[in-house]
Amino acid sequence: MRILAIESSARAASVALTEDGALVSQFFQASGLTHSRTLLKMAQELLSSLDMTVSDVDAVAVAKGPGSFTGVRIGVAAAKGLCWGADKPCIGVSTLEAMAYHGAGRGGEIVCPAMDARRGQIYNALFRFEGETPLRLTQDRAISLDELAAEAKKEKIPYFFVGDGAKLCYNRFLAESLPARLAPEPLLLQTAWGVARAAQGRTPEPADDLTPNYLRLSQAERERLEKLKDQ
Amino acid sequence: MRILAIESSARAASVALTEDGALVSQFFQASGLTHSRTLLKMAQELLSSLDMTVSDVDAVAVAKGPGSFTGVRIGVAAAKGLCWGADKPCIGVSTLEAMAYHGAGRGGEIVCPAMDARRGQIYNALFRFEGETPLRLTQDRAISLDELAAEAKKEKIPYFFVGDGAKLCYNRFLAESLPARLAPEPLLLQTAWGVARAAQGRTPEPADDLTPNYLRLSQAERERLEKLKDQ
Repeated sequence: MRILAIESSARAASVALTEDGALVSQFFQASGLTHSRTLLKMAQELLSSLDMTVSDVDAVAVAKGPGSFTGVRIGVAAAKGLCWGADKPCIGVSTLEAMAYHGAGRGGEIVCPAMDARRGQIYNALFRFEGETPLRLTQDRAISLDELAAEAKKEKIPYFFVGDGAKLCYNRFLAESLPARLAPEPLLLQTAWGVARAAQGRTPEPADDLTPNYLRLSQAERERLEKLKDQ
Repeated sequence: MRILAIESSARAASVALTEDGALVSQFFQASGLTHSRTLLKMAQELLSSLDMTVSDVDAVAVAKGPGSFTGVRIGVAAAKGLCWGADKPCIGVSTLEAMAYHGAGRGGEIVCPAMDARRGQIYNALFRFEGETPLRLTQDRAISLDELAAEAKKEKIPYFFVGDGAKLCYNRFLAESLPARLAPEPLLLQTAWGVARAAQGRTPEPADDLTPNYLRLSQAERERLEKLKDQ
């Protein structure tokens, strides 16, 4: 099965192509340029450099959140557009589960993908690797660094951090003398490779059914609810 | 310092751009398509997606071997071409040292980049990480799996394998009950990111001075020497 994967849920953007789970190509960028401008161009260039078009892939996979509202929307919209245009099915995966694959092979550690969710929180989830598959220990959640450190005090094994919130967590853990490891740079931020790995083996669905998962209400929605409460 | 890095010394090919050591973009391919066709196109598309040209970089870095004779030649020739065309200096780095960066953060392990050198041998070198820098324990060398395993029996710590010879070594170590780890897939084969990291902090030189390092004579040279011996 050939998967074209898309990742744009935070500062980095990337596209990847895997064949039966093996990485064939990845184009990654963490430049600060807006994803709406770079993402589809990178997908086109990656396919072109492989002498392929979207018609040559079996499914398009995308990180559907949590993440930046704008980033997740751009990724999901790009995936839907590619699928509709080429009549291909889609696989939406959790951004955090995709990041967990960056901890592949780290059997003796808890893998903790962490995205900076501002407002003193991180989006995160905990995983442990059994062989090549990350076993989920928690649901995707938004919790504070305090809560994460409090949880870790009960565990006896090191945490391995991935994501744009990884350094925040890593520094906090070191300050509290909790054992912590940081992903090497090419695996620090989200990658489309992780998305493709998380999608591998899942049944593709119609692109119509794909919806983002923000985990939290947007600022506009929060303000609207507060306004309604006051009335 | 902005470095454009090139890696084509084995089956994979990649280009990367780093700024003061930080990864800005990487385009990686392990498709089986010939590097002479894909490498410069990937470099051009990477720069274009960043709104840059070669004139915007400070130096071009390249893995100068050991590796496949053809692959190393393509990489070194591409680097010289880019440098001469845009009047930029060059930094040639050991393919094995560049791969060692894939083991960043693995303090308690020996990092062993391994390239399948056929004829029962691997190109390899041993490193240990002290902070963010790999400390070299051996020179680049071509030795047999037997010799590598014999060396490892004297050490008490796990080996971390990277490269197209990594699985060979990993399986051999497991068969001999020696502790071994395998790099996760995006760090398994050579990357231009590793080349850029190994080049960081080095003084660029004129492209004229760049020469490949094959470690071993080519088949044509070996046969010529044998023929001369027989005369």
